[in-house]
Amino acid sequence: MHGITEILFRLFIIFASAKIMGELFERIKQPALIGEILAGVILGPHLLNLIPNQEIYQVLAEIGVMILLFAVGLHIKVEDILKVGGRSTLVAVLGVVFPFVLGYLYTLIIQHNTIEAMFIGAAMVATSVGITARIFADLNLMDSEVARIILAAAVIDDILGMIVLAIVTGAGQGTLSYVNLGVITLEAIGFVLFLILVGTRLARRYVPRVANLRSRNAVFALALIFLLGLSAVASWIKLAAIIGAFMAGLVLSEFNYRFQLTQKTEPLYDFLVPFFFVMLGSKVDLAVFMQSKIWLAAGLITVLAILGKLIGCGLAVIKSGFKVAFQVGVGMVPRGEVGMIVASIGLASGAISSELYAVVLFMLTATTVLSPPILRRLLAPQ
Amino acid sequence: MHGITEILFRLFIIFASAKIMGELFERIKQPALIGEILAGVILGPHLLNLIPNQEIYQVLAEIGVMILLFAVGLHIKVEDILKVGGRSTLVAVLGVVFPFVLGYLYTLIIQHNTIEAMFIGAAMVATSVGITARIFADLNLMDSEVARIILAAAVIDDILGMIVLAIVTGAGQGTLSYVNLGVITLEAIGFVLFLILVGTRLARRYVPRVANLRSRNAVFALALIFLLGLSAVASWIKLAAIIGAFMAGLVLSEFNYRFQLTQKTEPLYDFLVPFFFVMLGSKVDLAVFMQSKIWLAAGLITVLAILGKLIGCGLAVIKSGFKVAFQVGVGMVPRGEVGMIVASIGLASGAISSELYAVVLFMLTATTVLSPPILRRLLAPQ
Repeated sequence: MHGITEILFRLFIIFASAKIMGELFERIKQPALIGEILAGVILGPHLLNLIPNQEIYQVLAEIGVMILLFAVGLHIKVEDILKVGGRSTLVAVLGVVFPFVLGYLYTLIIQHNTIEAMFIGAAMVATSVGITARIFADLNLMDSEVARIILAAAVIDDILGMIVLAIVTGAGQGTLSYVNLGVITLEAIGFVLFLILVGTRLARRYVPRVANLRSRNAVFALALIFLLGLSAVASWIKLAAIIGAFMAGLVLSEFNYRFQLTQKTEPLYDFLVPFFFVMLGSKVDLAVFMQSKIWLAAGLITVLAILGKLIGCGLAVIKSGFKVAFQVGVGMVPRGEVGMIVASIGLASGAISSELYAVVLFMLTATTVLSPPILRRLLAPQ
Repeated sequence: MHGITEILFRLFIIFASAKIMGELFERIKQPALIGEILAGVILGPHLLNLIPNQEIYQVLAEIGVMILLFAVGLHIKVEDILKVGGRSTLVAVLGVVFPFVLGYLYTLIIQHNTIEAMFIGAAMVATSVGITARIFADLNLMDSEVARIILAAAVIDDILGMIVLAIVTGAGQGTLSYVNLGVITLEAIGFVLFLILVGTRLARRYVPRVANLRSRNAVFALALIFLLGLSAVASWIKLAAIIGAFMAGLVLSEFNYRFQLTQKTEPLYDFLVPFFFVMLGSKVDLAVFMQSKIWLAAGLITVLAILGKLIGCGLAVIKSGFKVAFQVGVGMVPRGEVGMIVASIGLASGAISSELYAVVLFMLTATTVLSPPILRRLLAPQ
C-alpha cells in the first residue's frame, strides 16, 4: 500500500490534536467536543491544511458519528418512551416545533431557499441533554421535578430529531414537492416505528441465543453487525446512515446492561468519534466571519435557537409556574452533536452554503457554552 | 460524501461474513481467524469479487493489524523479558534460526531470489503461542515445566519475530547489499532497544500524570496516540508500521492492568481485526492450487516449518529428555498472525509472488490446524 506512512501520520495528528484540545477545553469547564471541533478548524484546509479531502478521513468520521449515535440509542429503552409522561412529551414536541419553525422562517426570509431553510430548521431542533444532565448531577438535583421532565423529554426529543433529520435528508436528495415530502416522512416514521415495534421483539427473541454462541463477545459482534447493516440500509433508503446507527442502539438498549454494550462501545467511541468532530471543524471557513453580516446572522440565529426552546418548552409546562417553565426552557437550550450532524450533511449534500454552515456551528457552540452557567445559577440553592 | 452507502454495505458484508465464518470454525474447534481468512478468500476478487481494491479497506485492515500487535505487546512486560531463563531464550532463538534458514534455503533453491527467500524465511519464524496456551489451560497444565518454557520462549520469540520482520521489510525496500542489510538490522534493533530502555522509563514517569488529566479515559487516549504515532514513525523509517504498534503496547504493558488497557482495546480488536484477516484471505488466489507443483511446494514448506521448530526448539531443551524436547517442539509449531503479516507485506511490496503467498498461507494454516490435536495427545495424562 502506498502512502500508508502519510495516512498514519495524519491520523496521529488528527487524533492527538483532538485529545489535547479536548483536554484544554475541559480545563476551562467547556465540553471537550468544542475543543475537538476547534482542532479541526485549525488543521483544516482554511488554516494549516493538514487534512486532505480524502475518502479515508471522511469514512472514519462517518463511522465515528455512527458510533456516537449508536451510543445515544443504547441509552433509550423502548419502555422509557412509553413511560414518558404527557408533560415531557409536550416539552419535546413544542421544543422541536418552535425552533424548527423559527429557523425555517428566518432562513426562508434571508435566502428564499426551501431546502436550505429546512436544514437550518432541522439543525436547531435537537437538544443535547448530556450537558444539562451533568449540571443536575453536580448539584444533586437529578430527582427534582425539573430534571425528570427534561431527561424524559430528551428521549422523545432524540427520536423526533432523528425523524426530522431523516425527512430533510430525504427531501434534500429528491425534487422537493409535497408528495415527495409526504413519502419521505412516511418512510422515516415507518423505518423508526418498524424497528421499535418489530426490531425490539426480534432482538428479545434472538439476542439471548446469540449470547450462547462460541465466539467471544458474540453479542457485541452482533451489535456491530446491526450497526453497520442498519446504517447501510438507512443510507440506502435515503435517510441518513446515522439514523440506522441510532436505531441499532435503540433496538439493543434492553440488553445494554446485561452485555455491557455501552462499556464495550466506549473504546470505539474514544477512538473514532474525535475524527468526526475534527472533520466537522475542518469544514469551517473562519474567513466568512470577516463579514459583519455573518456575525449578525450568527447572533440572530443563536437568539432564535434560544427563544425557540425557551418558548416552546416553557409553554409546555407553564402550568407548573413561571420558574419551572424557565428552568425547563434553559435546560433544553444546549444543542450539540445532532445539530452538527445535520449541518454537516447539509454542507456535504450542497444543500447549505459554507456561510450558513459556519453560522449554524456558531449557534450550536454558543447555545452549548451559554446555557450551563445560566442553568447553574437558576438551579443553585438561593 | 458519495458512495458512502456502498462502502457501508461492503463493511457490513466483510464484518458479518468474518464473524459468521469465525463462529463456524470455532464450532469445529478451529481458531476463528482461519474462518475469517476463508471469508476473505470467498469475498475476494478471485471468487465473489465483493471487496474492491480501495484504500479505505486496506487502511481499515492496517489499523486492525496494528491493534492486533498492540494487544500482543500489551501482554509482554519488560521485566518478563529479563526474567526469561536461559533455556527459554535458547528455545526462542533456535526456534527462530532453524525455520528461517530452512525457509530461506528452500526458496533460494527453487526461486533464486534473495529478497523473496528472506520473506519466506521470516514468515516461518514467529510462533503463535495463543493456541498452545489454550491447550495447556484446558488440560490444567499451565504450571508444568513444558508450559513455562514455551510461554517464556514465546515472549522472546515475538520480539525476535518483529526484528526479523523489520529487517526483511527494510531490506525489501532498498537495494540489497550487506551494508544496507547491516544498517537496517542496526536500525531495527536500535528502534526496539530504544523503546524498551528509554520508552518504558518515560512511560513510568508520565503515564501516572496523564491519569490525572480531566479527559475521560486519558491513559487509553494516550495509548492510542502512542499506537498511531509509533506506527507512523516505524513506517517512516522503513520498518513495518505494526512494529511501532507492537512496541507501543510493550512500552505501556506495565500499566496494562492498572488502566485496563487490554480490556479497553478488546472492542477495537473485535471491530477492526476481522478486516485484516478478511483482506488477507481476499488476496489468496485459489486458482494457483490447480497446479500440482503448488501442492508440492505447500506440502514441503509445511514440513520444513514443522521440522524447523521441532529441531530448533527441541535441540534447545534436549538435556531435559526426548519427551520434553518433543512436547516443547510441537508446542512451538503453530504459526499465525505474525507470519501472515509478513506474507501480506511481502505480497503488497511485490517481494513475493501470489503463488508463494498462497503457499505460505497454506503452511501457516496447516501448522495451526495440525499442532493442537497432536499436542493434546502428547500432553494428556496416559
